Amino acid sequence: MSLLLSQRPSDQAELENFGVDWVVHYQFDDVEISKATSEYEALIHDLHEAHLETQVRHGHGASVLIFIRVPRAYLGNLVHQSRVKDWLYGIIHELPVGDNDTIADAETPAEALRSVYHAVTWKKSLGGAHITPKHGKWKNIASAFPLHDQAANAELLRKWSKTILLMAEDLDAIRALFGEKVAFYFAFIQSYSLFLVFPAAWGMLCWYYSRSYSITFAVGNCLWAMVFVEYWKIRETDLSLRWQVNGVGALKVTRTQYVWEKEVRDKITGEVTQIFSPYRQFLRQLLLVPFTSIASLALGGLIVVTFALEVFISEVYTGSLKGYLEFLPTILFSLCLPSITNLLTRIATRLTKYENYRTQDQYDLAQTAKQFVMHFITAFLPTILTAFVYVPFGARIVPYLNIAYLRGKATDVPRDFHVDPSRLQQEVIYLSLTGQVLSFGEEVVLPYVKRIAMEKWRDYRSKQAVVEHRRNVSQATNQVLVDEVEESAFLSRVRSEAEAVEYNVHEDTLEMCVQFGYLTLFGVSWPLVALGFLVNNWLELRGDFFKLSVECQRPPPIRADSIGPSLQGLEVLSWLGTLSTAAIVYLYRDGMTEIHLSSFLLTILLAEWAYLGMRYAVSTGLAKILSSTLRRESAKRYAVRKGYLEASVSSGPGGSPPRGKLRVRFRDKVTVYTSATDPPSPQSEEELHEATLDDSERRFWSGNAVEDGLRMIKALGTSAADSTGKMRKEL
Amino acid sequence: MSLLLSQRPSDQAELENFGVDWVVHYQFDDVEISKATSEYEALIHDLHEAHLETQVRHGHGASVLIFIRVPRAYLGNLVHQSRVKDWLYGIIHELPVGDNDTIADAETPAEALRSVYHAVTWKKSLGGAHITPKHGKWKNIASAFPLHDQAANAELLRKWSKTILLMAEDLDAIRALFGEKVAFYFAFIQSYSLFLVFPAAWGMLCWYYSRSYSITFAVGNCLWAMVFVEYWKIRETDLSLRWQVNGVGALKVTRTQYVWEKEVRDKITGEVTQIFSPYRQFLRQLLLVPFTSIASLALGGLIVVTFALEVFISEVYTGSLKGYLEFLPTILFSLCLPSITNLLTRIATRLTKYENYRTQDQYDLAQTAKQFVMHFITAFLPTILTAFVYVPFGARIVPYLNIAYLRGKATDVPRDFHVDPSRLQQEVIYLSLTGQVLSFGEEVVLPYVKRIAMEKWRDYRSKQAVVEHRRNVSQATNQVLVDEVEESAFLSRVRSEAEAVEYNVHEDTLEMCVQFGYLTLFGVSWPLVALGFLVNNWLELRGDFFKLSVECQRPPPIRADSIGPSLQGLEVLSWLGTLSTAAIVYLYRDGMTEIHLSSFLLTILLAEWAYLGMRYAVSTGLAKILSSTLRRESAKRYAVRKGYLEASVSSGPGGSPPRGKLRVRFRDKVTVYTSATDPPSPQSEEELHEATLDDSERRFWSGNAVEDGLRMIKALGTSAADSTGKMRKEL
Repeated sequence: MSLLLSQRPSDQAELENFGVDWVVHYQFDDVEISKATSEYEALIHDLHEAHLETQVRHGHGASVLIFIRVPRAYLGNLVHQSRVKDWLYGIIHELPVGDNDTIADAETPAEALRSVYHAVTWKKSLGGAHITPKHGKWKNIASAFPLHDQAANAELLRKWSKTILLMAEDLDAIRALFGEKVAFYFAFIQSYSLFLVFPAAWGMLCWYYSRSYSITFAVGNCLWAMVFVEYWKIRETDLSLRWQVNGVGALKVTRTQYVWEKEVRDKITGEVTQIFSPYRQFLRQLLLVPFTSIASLALGGLIVVTFALEVFISEVYTGSLKGYLEFLPTILFSLCLPSITNLLTRIATRLTKYENYRTQDQYDLAQTAKQFVMHFITAFLPTILTAFVYVPFGARIVPYLNIAYLRGKATDVPRDFHVDPSRLQQEVIYLSLTGQVLSFGEEVVLPYVKRIAMEKWRDYRSKQAVVEHRRNVSQATNQVLVDEVEESAFLSRVRSEAEAVEYNVHEDTLEMCVQFGYLTLFGVSWPLVALGFLVNNWLELRGDFFKLSVECQRPPPIRADSIGPSLQGLEVLSWLGTLSTAAIVYLYRDGMTEIHLSSFLLTILLAEWAYLGMRYAVSTGLAKILSSTLRRESAKRYAVRKGYLEASVSSGPGGSPPRGKLRVRFRDKVTVYTSATDPPSPQSEEELHEATLDDSERRFWSGNAVEDGLRMIKALGTSAADSTGKMRKEL
Repeated sequence: MSLLLSQRPSDQAELENFGVDWVVHYQFDDVEISKATSEYEALIHDLHEAHLETQVRHGHGASVLIFIRVPRAYLGNLVHQSRVKDWLYGIIHELPVGDNDTIADAETPAEALRSVYHAVTWKKSLGGAHITPKHGKWKNIASAFPLHDQAANAELLRKWSKTILLMAEDLDAIRALFGEKVAFYFAFIQSYSLFLVFPAAWGMLCWYYSRSYSITFAVGNCLWAMVFVEYWKIRETDLSLRWQVNGVGALKVTRTQYVWEKEVRDKITGEVTQIFSPYRQFLRQLLLVPFTSIASLALGGLIVVTFALEVFISEVYTGSLKGYLEFLPTILFSLCLPSITNLLTRIATRLTKYENYRTQDQYDLAQTAKQFVMHFITAFLPTILTAFVYVPFGARIVPYLNIAYLRGKATDVPRDFHVDPSRLQQEVIYLSLTGQVLSFGEEVVLPYVKRIAMEKWRDYRSKQAVVEHRRNVSQATNQVLVDEVEESAFLSRVRSEAEAVEYNVHEDTLEMCVQFGYLTLFGVSWPLVALGFLVNNWLELRGDFFKLSVECQRPPPIRADSIGPSLQGLEVLSWLGTLSTAAIVYLYRDGMTEIHLSSFLLTILLAEWAYLGMRYAVSTGLAKILSSTLRRESAKRYAVRKGYLEASVSSGPGGSPPRGKLRVRFRDKVTVYTSATDPPSPQSEEELHEATLDDSERRFWSGNAVEDGLRMIKALGTSAADSTGKMRKEL
């Protein structure tokens, strides 16, 4: 029983969360009260059936918040079972000591929360409550999420604002708070930013000492991109082994939406597996080809038209309102882009659903791959058009725009129209600097302002609503609709978290990939691009963490062993980057004079061969030099087996496991990185159960979720119906 | 004790080998007798110290054959220890049942022989006798090798001569006889030949229905090459898992020649490892670049000169003896090639030694990589010159040859010299068909004839020598120099095996790679190439097995999990093949008319992009469709762990291992593939020891190796000295 130390002792951070492990946000705006009550009862029933304790408070508007708490002993056992499963699937090498009833101590908050997540979402056959927000039976559940650990978040943000570099321990801390999937993103942006120091310094040197479009810088930049991608591949394996998540994709559970053709009992394991023909799936995946074509055509067409209009207005058009009209194409483009992107995203989502992936991981990856294509087109096509069409061929193309327009009329534009080759550089400078600042504002600042404003407005509304309620409902109901004084701060925080958006780590990763792509594709035209990106990323990293911890719901601590398909994106970009750099240097170096198609093609071909050759050398060399990780991993396996062998020869299986190296606790505000060393003194289970809850918490958990909830639904549902009714009348 | 069933019961094949496990061939032609005797004594001492039984007979000339036999119980324990080591290094998933004294039954002859090999060659600290033929202390040991299993070899050869395809069981049989490294080569040639059916059929179709240099055939051929390489990668993993050798490189022992910088005690495992900086090794490996350049220049120069001379003589020269002179360049080339190749091989070997690899495996791979480069140049450069230099530019270049020669004289050759574009096709036909037949003769038939002739001559010589011995030496010595009647057939076989060459599996693999390369690079110029190769390979496979089993020493059954660096060679060839095919089709399709450099480059660039794109699609698709192997592997691990978990929960560790699926025994002549099913009845160790040796075998093992050997050395050494003395006198 000495292992029964829960992850949530009575420290400051815990107190603020009132021992709540998970929150389910049930909304019933558009639901009839009778249906809402029955759904609510079923929800509570399912949760209780899965051994979860529940409590309920009202949310904003017609919604209730169901607070879930997993009994400590049960949670400890879930953690142990999860580790045994890891061992069965070969994720970890040593079998956790214990039997079916062992209660294990989670190493990190994320590990504990992951077990909670499984208890809430897994199918009933797997022992979960099968709560699937926004899907099927539970489509009225808006979200289900864990609560932020405010103290730890604040501590990390404070620490990072003072440092330049993130250390391994910082990444471990993110992993401990948010799980490996999120930690991989931060590890990526950290490695990437660190690597950016080279092209930034190299760029400054070349900018100062050599001519523009310098071959020296081009070669350095391309090599850097290649080395970074190969390094990251090794680093990723390194991290996945350090965090013991290598190959974790294998044990992910089946998505509820998965359609299988047959169930097969595996001859070797005896487990029942659901099979969907990989051949059919591959055929379905081939639909990616027409999708990519359509997306390219739609987005590319839009971009080309905008571009042509812009050129036309700025270079050819001489009519009235020219000053205003110049902005028109960009404005139109900005207006059309969201709806086209939305449409494409919807198609992409349907496609991904049709591709029918077994696990959520695979689903996410396939969806991200499609978004990558779309991002790629919108981000790079304008600059590609400038670099390889407008500047080289502008002098030939632009007069046609003129002629097409002024058919028959006298030509206003002189025939020897000349495009300024520095336009590419201007565009790169604008997009790489201004663009980054704007996107940061759009991503972090704007949502923050919006959220604050929204909250103010809602506060105002809800105060009015409370007054109305008072008049309408009984005393007992009234009590459940008014927050206790000691809970009110906590509840208002939970309500705002319930309204917050979900954090999408793939989006952030993609953003970094696009930045990387911009540097490799067009960096050669202005060597200071990397410097700008380096500065931006210092802020970006902290901004992303701020967004994650303040503006988004805490994501379920999902495990992953890679940044996903973005890695392939990086490889493609470093390859395209070499071709593009060679092409730009060839075209622009001598100011667009003496260009021959055959020598242009030869340049590209040679650049490509150099790329292929160098990549092979770099990956072989790096793998050789950085092979220590894999060696350490096999040494560890060797040690475990050796120890087991010795133990089994002398007596039986045993030996206490040397786990806990990476143990990270957020025990108090001062030492975020404390690693727990003192084992807790043995206590009886009851004592422990009590010890984890203080007075206010016990009070919080004392109500009856079923009764309270039903009362709330009736009260809030009626008032919501009233107010909609009123509004209808008023209209 | 029930596991004590040795791999060598009293069956036919065993009888013929007199229970001999290993043979050491000690030669002392150039050694003083006193030194020879002390070396011999040390050898026998070392062998006895390593718990090996020895027996001695004289060999051809001044040499003795030391027969080694590992006591059955000791061998069984070695096999068990080896399996435990496999488990420790993660090669197999389940710990073999037993303790330090367990005696295991080898699954295959190769497994038993591998343990014998280790006992003979491993360092004394590892429990071996540290016999290292041709190296250091043992540089007078010409070879150390196991004896062929004549019956099994003959049976396999007989079976294969009647079938078209090799089955999985045939590959398992090769593995059981010769180990995984050799089996991988046969698996490769089998898969490759099977795959050849497609381009053979496709080629016939295209040859019949479409024009020459058809794009249809070109695309099919390139796609086929790509699919084959990607398929083989998966197949290789499949086989390595089936044969339980995946990742086997990790447990290979350190080479005697390895130089390390420091010894480090691993923190995790506690094992001492010898470390040589991987960074320094990488730097040394970079010497491959100048080596490749030098090799290319030397071989390339030779080829270019030969080519130019040939062209000059056949096309320009009109002087006397033209008919004979035409063959001169080729003859000169053939005369120079071996010495240049030898020189380059020597440089390559020194380079590989300098690169200082820890294991023999890594050493072999590095050496093979260098040979690959040399093979590549000699095999492909002549045809590349024909295809891309002589035919397209011949009309421009050849007149220069003429002018250079006839400086100032009148020009005999008309200026509008024209090269026949069909020359490429003729060359491809000649090289792919005649070349294959000639190389088969050179590789299999010629050595066979040579060996037979050599044996006849030696028989004649040794008969004379025996007569001489009789006169010179004592009666006791005389007895050891004359074979017993019942042993004489066996001994003459062993003597001829001792003189046989070592089998180099890399050479055979390289030969297949060169064939593959020829098909991908130039196959498009004559679609029937693949058909020819297909027919050739049917013979090649059997010829190689004949060579392996009759003309070579039985190789030590070394394990490997791949065909090695040839795999990378195949990848490079399929890439180069695409480029070459595109170029040939572009150049030759319209009979060398309308060629533009820019469209030529564009063709190559597009072909390369198509290749890169398709390869990604093919490898992704194949990995998806053929993923069953890896799934099965993880299922197996899961099952093992699950079983262990259940066992450990209920009692302790245990459960009998379900090994032996692949067990292959060569028990008698009729059923080569019998899998042993009846467990042997328990017997006492002594009985078993006796049971494994019959009368003649017991007699064979009854002599005293030390005394007999010393007597032989003295006798043979003296007579050798006598005869050299005589010869010197005679001269």
